[in-house]
Amino acid sequence: MKKWREECGVFGIWNHPEASRITYLGLFALQHRGQESCGIVSLDKENHIHHKGLGLVADNFTEPELDRLSGRTAIGHVRYATTGDNLLTNAQPLTANLKDGFVAVAHNGNIVNAGKLREELKNDGAIFQGSNDTEVLIHLLARDKAVKFEDRVMNALKKLEGAYSLVILTSKQLFAVRDPMGFRPLSIGKLDGDMNGLSYSSWVVASETCAFDLIGAKFERDILPGEILIIENGGGKTHSLHLPEAPKKAQCIFEHVYFARPDSVVFGEGVYEARKNLGRYLAQECPIDADIVVPVPDSGVAAALGYAEESKIPFDMGIIRNHYVGRTFIEPRSHIRSFGVKIKLNPMAALLRGKRVIVIDDSIVRGTTSKKIISLVRNAGAKEIHLRIAAPPTTGPCYYGVDTPTKKELIAANQSVDEIRKFVGADTLGYLSVTGLLKAVRANSNTYCAACFDGKYPTPIYD
Amino acid sequence: MKKWREECGVFGIWNHPEASRITYLGLFALQHRGQESCGIVSLDKENHIHHKGLGLVADNFTEPELDRLSGRTAIGHVRYATTGDNLLTNAQPLTANLKDGFVAVAHNGNIVNAGKLREELKNDGAIFQGSNDTEVLIHLLARDKAVKFEDRVMNALKKLEGAYSLVILTSKQLFAVRDPMGFRPLSIGKLDGDMNGLSYSSWVVASETCAFDLIGAKFERDILPGEILIIENGGGKTHSLHLPEAPKKAQCIFEHVYFARPDSVVFGEGVYEARKNLGRYLAQECPIDADIVVPVPDSGVAAALGYAEESKIPFDMGIIRNHYVGRTFIEPRSHIRSFGVKIKLNPMAALLRGKRVIVIDDSIVRGTTSKKIISLVRNAGAKEIHLRIAAPPTTGPCYYGVDTPTKKELIAANQSVDEIRKFVGADTLGYLSVTGLLKAVRANSNTYCAACFDGKYPTPIYD
Amino acid sequence: MKKWREECGVFGIWNHPEASRITYLGLFALQHRGQESCGIVSLDKENHIHHKGLGLVADNFTEPELDRLSGRTAIGHVRYATTGDNLLTNAQPLTANLKDGFVAVAHNGNIVNAGKLREELKNDGAIFQGSNDTEVLIHLLARDKAVKFEDRVMNALKKLEGAYSLVILTSKQLFAVRDPMGFRPLSIGKLDGDMNGLSYSSWVVASETCAFDLIGAKFERDILPGEILIIENGGGKTHSLHLPEAPKKAQCIFEHVYFARPDSVVFGEGVYEARKNLGRYLAQECPIDADIVVPVPDSGVAAALGYAEESKIPFDMGIIRNHYVGRTFIEPRSHIRSFGVKIKLNPMAALLRGKRVIVIDDSIVRGTTSKKIISLVRNAGAKEIHLRIAAPPTTGPCYYGVDTPTKKELIAANQSVDEIRKFVGADTLGYLSVTGLLKAVRANSNTYCAACFDGKYPTPIYD
Amino acid sequence: MKKWREECGVFGIWNHPEASRITYLGLFALQHRGQESCGIVSLDKENHIHHKGLGLVADNFTEPELDRLSGRTAIGHVRYATTGDNLLTNAQPLTANLKDGFVAVAHNGNIVNAGKLREELKNDGAIFQGSNDTEVLIHLLARDKAVKFEDRVMNALKKLEGAYSLVILTSKQLFAVRDPMGFRPLSIGKLDGDMNGLSYSSWVVASETCAFDLIGAKFERDILPGEILIIENGGGKTHSLHLPEAPKKAQCIFEHVYFARPDSVVFGEGVYEARKNLGRYLAQECPIDADIVVPVPDSGVAAALGYAEESKIPFDMGIIRNHYVGRTFIEPRSHIRSFGVKIKLNPMAALLRGKRVIVIDDSIVRGTTSKKIISLVRNAGAKEIHLRIAAPPTTGPCYYGVDTPTKKELIAANQSVDEIRKFVGADTLGYLSVTGLLKAVRANSNTYCAACFDGKYPTPIYD
Repeated sequence: MKKWREECGVFGIWNHPEASRITYLGLFALQHRGQESCGIVSLDKENHIHHKGLGLVADNFTEPELDRLSGRTAIGHVRYATTGDNLLTNAQPLTANLKDGFVAVAHNGNIVNAGKLREELKNDGAIFQGSNDTEVLIHLLARDKAVKFEDRVMNALKKLEGAYSLVILTSKQLFAVRDPMGFRPLSIGKLDGDMNGLSYSSWVVASETCAFDLIGAKFERDILPGEILIIENGGGKTHSLHLPEAPKKAQCIFEHVYFARPDSVVFGEGVYEARKNLGRYLAQECPIDADIVVPVPDSGVAAALGYAEESKIPFDMGIIRNHYVGRTFIEPRSHIRSFGVKIKLNPMAALLRGKRVIVIDDSIVRGTTSKKIISLVRNAGAKEIHLRIAAPPTTGPCYYGVDTPTKKELIAANQSVDEIRKFVGADTLGYLSVTGLLKAVRANSNTYCAACFDGKYPTPIYD
Repeated sequence: MKKWREECGVFGIWNHPEASRITYLGLFALQHRGQESCGIVSLDKENHIHHKGLGLVADNFTEPELDRLSGRTAIGHVRYATTGDNLLTNAQPLTANLKDGFVAVAHNGNIVNAGKLREELKNDGAIFQGSNDTEVLIHLLARDKAVKFEDRVMNALKKLEGAYSLVILTSKQLFAVRDPMGFRPLSIGKLDGDMNGLSYSSWVVASETCAFDLIGAKFERDILPGEILIIENGGGKTHSLHLPEAPKKAQCIFEHVYFARPDSVVFGEGVYEARKNLGRYLAQECPIDADIVVPVPDSGVAAALGYAEESKIPFDMGIIRNHYVGRTFIEPRSHIRSFGVKIKLNPMAALLRGKRVIVIDDSIVRGTTSKKIISLVRNAGAKEIHLRIAAPPTTGPCYYGVDTPTKKELIAANQSVDEIRKFVGADTLGYLSVTGLLKAVRANSNTYCAACFDGKYPTPIYD
Repeated sequence: MKKWREECGVFGIWNHPEASRITYLGLFALQHRGQESCGIVSLDKENHIHHKGLGLVADNFTEPELDRLSGRTAIGHVRYATTGDNLLTNAQPLTANLKDGFVAVAHNGNIVNAGKLREELKNDGAIFQGSNDTEVLIHLLARDKAVKFEDRVMNALKKLEGAYSLVILTSKQLFAVRDPMGFRPLSIGKLDGDMNGLSYSSWVVASETCAFDLIGAKFERDILPGEILIIENGGGKTHSLHLPEAPKKAQCIFEHVYFARPDSVVFGEGVYEARKNLGRYLAQECPIDADIVVPVPDSGVAAALGYAEESKIPFDMGIIRNHYVGRTFIEPRSHIRSFGVKIKLNPMAALLRGKRVIVIDDSIVRGTTSKKIISLVRNAGAKEIHLRIAAPPTTGPCYYGVDTPTKKELIAANQSVDEIRKFVGADTLGYLSVTGLLKAVRANSNTYCAACFDGKYPTPIYD
Repeated sequence: MKKWREECGVFGIWNHPEASRITYLGLFALQHRGQESCGIVSLDKENHIHHKGLGLVADNFTEPELDRLSGRTAIGHVRYATTGDNLLTNAQPLTANLKDGFVAVAHNGNIVNAGKLREELKNDGAIFQGSNDTEVLIHLLARDKAVKFEDRVMNALKKLEGAYSLVILTSKQLFAVRDPMGFRPLSIGKLDGDMNGLSYSSWVVASETCAFDLIGAKFERDILPGEILIIENGGGKTHSLHLPEAPKKAQCIFEHVYFARPDSVVFGEGVYEARKNLGRYLAQECPIDADIVVPVPDSGVAAALGYAEESKIPFDMGIIRNHYVGRTFIEPRSHIRSFGVKIKLNPMAALLRGKRVIVIDDSIVRGTTSKKIISLVRNAGAKEIHLRIAAPPTTGPCYYGVDTPTKKELIAANQSVDEIRKFVGADTLGYLSVTGLLKAVRANSNTYCAACFDGKYPTPIYD
């Protein structure tokens, strides 16, 4: 159902009397980052307990299951998994039994040299269960000869290239890690409270701060690019190791454009405000005289509000979204017609009839969905339709943890803006510039990766 | 999850090559009117085929099930069912085998004299399976002695008092009926097309016009209060009988306030526009100086847009809703705290901090949820909170098909506006007047029922 | 999977602290009488609570479900249901809400004039939910004008022709009934005990005595043909009404041949011993010189032991049955061969090779299964195969509650014994005579119905 | 439900047009060897496809699943799995991705030095997913440096001590292996046929020959102790490697006593005949004057027939077994009594009353079940009860793949025969001697392991 699919969300909590329940809620808040599988591993004394399943968090964890996931520490993961029959094998957190005990790893990102490392490990006798990058990391951890586990983590990570935000749980320590370029977000917070008169003070880590809001935790700071943060013992203090510094940072700008929840603060910027800014700059760059600004819900709402504010053209919810369309909805086979996007979106004729309409969307992938939306709005009686995209044309695939179509399938990689306009059937079409994009998130090109828009990939790409 | 629960949505289609699939889509569009059970009955030649289940439409009808529901005519129903173990027994459409064949009935509303009729029928040897009003109607149909089935429908309906919008399917005819006061909506449309070179022209009836939009049908008109519309044979023409006229109409104003989908046209008025009007009049009646207008999503959005437009105070989505909270989400037991409304709504501190905030909601039931929302917004840093309700205080229960709390539980039936304000913790609280409400839907008190607001019940109330 | 399918088993218990659990166990013991659906209705104070489901007893009743079925009285039913989509609608016990409260009915048998009664009732305004005979009885109960419910039971039953063993539960009484000819078995027993220091004394009724053995109840006596036994109040005493006496009794001899469990006592005779007698008389009537007597398991075992004892030819389990073949096993589609009866039965070559084998089975229906068994035994190396059937040729269908093929499908109704022998591929074939059959159960033709063997139907047959 | 639980059954087929369907049937025939989990891996070109699940074969493989398991080669496994949450992780066949491609392994047995090997491997950087012995073997295969895969199999197996019958599938070869002592059975057969005019000639391997009977394969021979049989290419020919010869063979005598299906030929002897011999020698060793020989069904039937034949005392099925007691049956909680063994077994009073009864069972584990059976038979009216066990007293646990209680729990390890007799409540108790046992299977102590009876463990036991 989602246009762009990110690989994952991760969560961890150290020293909480209801660790698995808090993890469940944390994953629930991160559900938008991955809906195909989910899992929780808890640590009770020195035992790991785990449960993984396909589908949504709310469908996989019952009260008895949460009771079984006992202990004061837990990590969790939500995942968009590639198709195939081994979905459950690849569900995370991955767990393994090493010489110094169990380890569990939850990963968000994509390791660009995983294929090469995998071949080397296999030639050295490693066996692989699935096709997950994370399994490579676990093998590196298992084989490293350093005595302290945290040194083995350092040694193993030095071999990885690419994007990774990690939560690692052993029977003694919880690690929170971001790769040196900082592709994916990861934040740390604090959750203090008491239960039955006993006070507790817990550390929490999460891909997005919206998870902190739900559980009532206080956001402390982002894990730094290249930081290996370690929580242990009572957990009062943490300490950190640091991977060799990268020449530049490459925080994913698409988190702001599409992935992150609007109520999260990502890479130091509020997402909702960033999206409104995208709309404001879009209004400056691509102005048009019109009667109404209408978002494609829900992802286009904030940008449309920004566009309306900047352009002084009234905002209205001219397209209604049916939220019952979830994972379970299967459009029935029909010999007559495809209902497609109509199942989800209904334009309101009463509002649109005879109007000059600015439609705001966050991106165009293949163009087919946009074409259908334009057609629905046209049939609802709009006189003119001006499509405005609150991001630059998407011209390249992502190699850092987002499931994108190939370059061949991306319409903006193959057609000019005017060709796209013709294809989707809009009267005018405007995209935000890369400059506008960076301004909207108050970023510069040394701290953000915008490779899907500008082609400047910050790492070598293999294969 | 819903604040107010309506009993049902009904749908029917006559003469369509994929009748059960269209009914499935129609019910999907009406899903907001009832999520506890659903059912479809199709007519293939003279055989009825049915399938009913608990839960959502999308979870109950698979392709093989839709294949099994063969035939060119079908009716369907979605229902909010009262608690108890006989949920499936009461699921609709109800079917029965009468002397002249099968009959299936789908009902939206509530018969106020059902208890009395039920006792009379039992004393005369009738047996009842469930506790459904609709079963009373079927017994009346079975026992009437008139020769023509449509006369028996007329005779049976004359005995009923209260609210009913009905779709009745026999092996020869499809009936669409509204009670003489017209409490619940019911509309008729036309769906023409062709399949494999054969053209068809279908009649469709539905509780709301949004179902027509999804299937691509053309809205023709509302079924009139007191009309018994009959479709038969090829279906080219319909004819109608008319129940004795009622002294006044009593169309449910709450359909506009809360129930109906914003993209429906109900009782001749677009719901979204009506809700914006509620906000506009609310701004006129209860103005306040503030920095930002924030809706409680999703139901408060349209009214908030109207309020913002009228008051010139900027609109913003200051509270974000998590749409993964559906039927399957069970808040985990916790010894520490209840997460409650936070699971669903997250206020955005970045937007609200230090602001004077107008929060727009559609209604207050017991006050407990409003109290939690105000508290969340306060904790997010709002300097002032002005709660504005886009309807009058709800002071009485509904007897016409809406599941409301008792008078004792309705906060506005027992406390003054200022007491409510204190309870929920707002700085100011304002409700729309009944006059404003009627103006917003361009109605007068002779055509609408607003008894839950003004106590003027249009029928006698038994028990 | 079963050759012959009986319609049902019924069970009831009055005044037991764990009534639904005992009913569950009773139904479990009667599971062989019906595997397609099952149900329990309990009575707690004056409330009926029910649960029905498709499939086996053990798959439908969980601990929480049994807890919900509270109260000291319960009845239950297992059913072989005809195919169709309304399986659950027809599952029993049927329940209804009458003028004097709830009634639940569990039925074993078949009413031969049900069709006629149904038409009369419909013409008088009755509505029917399913196609069950039992529904006719409930309508008759609802419409009778007698003041006492037991008189209404008497009046209603007088209108029925055919086979019925019934358990009826109202909010005040439990009825156990057998039709005047006594087609189907029904027995009453007593179960005394104490729980938490409180002693109880319960009445139990069941289709077969094996249910009493499991729950530890003492068999008292069979309900008499035509008896309406009534248990009420404390239940210390029962009283009975009696339907008009029938000119002859017609107890189903097939209960002894095939249906009943070998460990039951049916119509006063132990089933296992009766089956051994079938084998003994078969050995006398159809002797043959051979090396080994082999049953088709499990139903042929007792008769084979009797045959072996009488003939002095050694008994051996030359065919092994795989008991994992249950409801869930679906033979996979194959383009190569059908595995059919081999899935269930494996002949042991080591035992059969070079031997003259007497194969004992209980009956031949269409002949196709027998043909496959003979072929398997032949391929296992048997030198001669002498098929002996421990019953007479089945020449007619049953109209009293057994699901039989039509006359056209019954091989013995259409072919001579020698033709059947050729068809199934045996060297010789012998059936027991009707006289031998009656001797084996120590019966005479005035007390038993053997119509499927001798064509003498004890009631008129309508259609 | 089973008294003794064996770890597994394995199956494999090479070059068959419906390989997964044949494997499904093969596993179905081996279902008695493991009911907790099952799995199939097929090979289509060079791709492995797998499906594993908890529970019975018939509940886990649907037609679409069997279609998905495409290819002309497949292996399968049924398993008794130890309790715990990682059941599915340990389900077999295990699969892994090695340097030369995928490998899948199905294992029956127990590696006695697995713990030590596992520690060594972990210290060398190996990571483990589960607690399965088979995972150790896969690691050894992955790490061996030999060039040819079959040499790596040889090298890896040389490191294992204990019991293993294995089927290994790579993308090029199918291996069938028995450990040098030959603890567990494994046989090879041939299945020729044609489909759509194309003839095929398939090799099949299975734990027991009953699997060959079901699929219509011809038994060729047992895999030899220490043999590594390799099938590759067209599969016309096989070749074998041989592990170093063991000083003695140790074929599990319990396969004949209890595990194997009676219709299998195991270690060259028919199981049913072997069991009858157990009964015959038992009659010679422990004669008693009595009226009737009654087996505890189903496992005691063959021995009882042998006992009856030898003693000339009549055999009868005096205890009836309810075959609906399967995995799904949960005895309901009761405050009154435990129903226990009565749920499964019902003694027939009519047969037993006043009789001197010889009860034949295959073994006594803790004595509690035997005690209940004796009590049931006593309550059914037996005058004398003589318990005869068709095996010697079980005095030691098994370390070679059978899940046995600890020595402390085994009644015969702690009490004299007379003490056991008193505990179970029999009038007399007799066991077969170890000599009689060996004679019954025509074995000598150099070819069989009877360690559970005589304490002579054929390998060192660690831990």
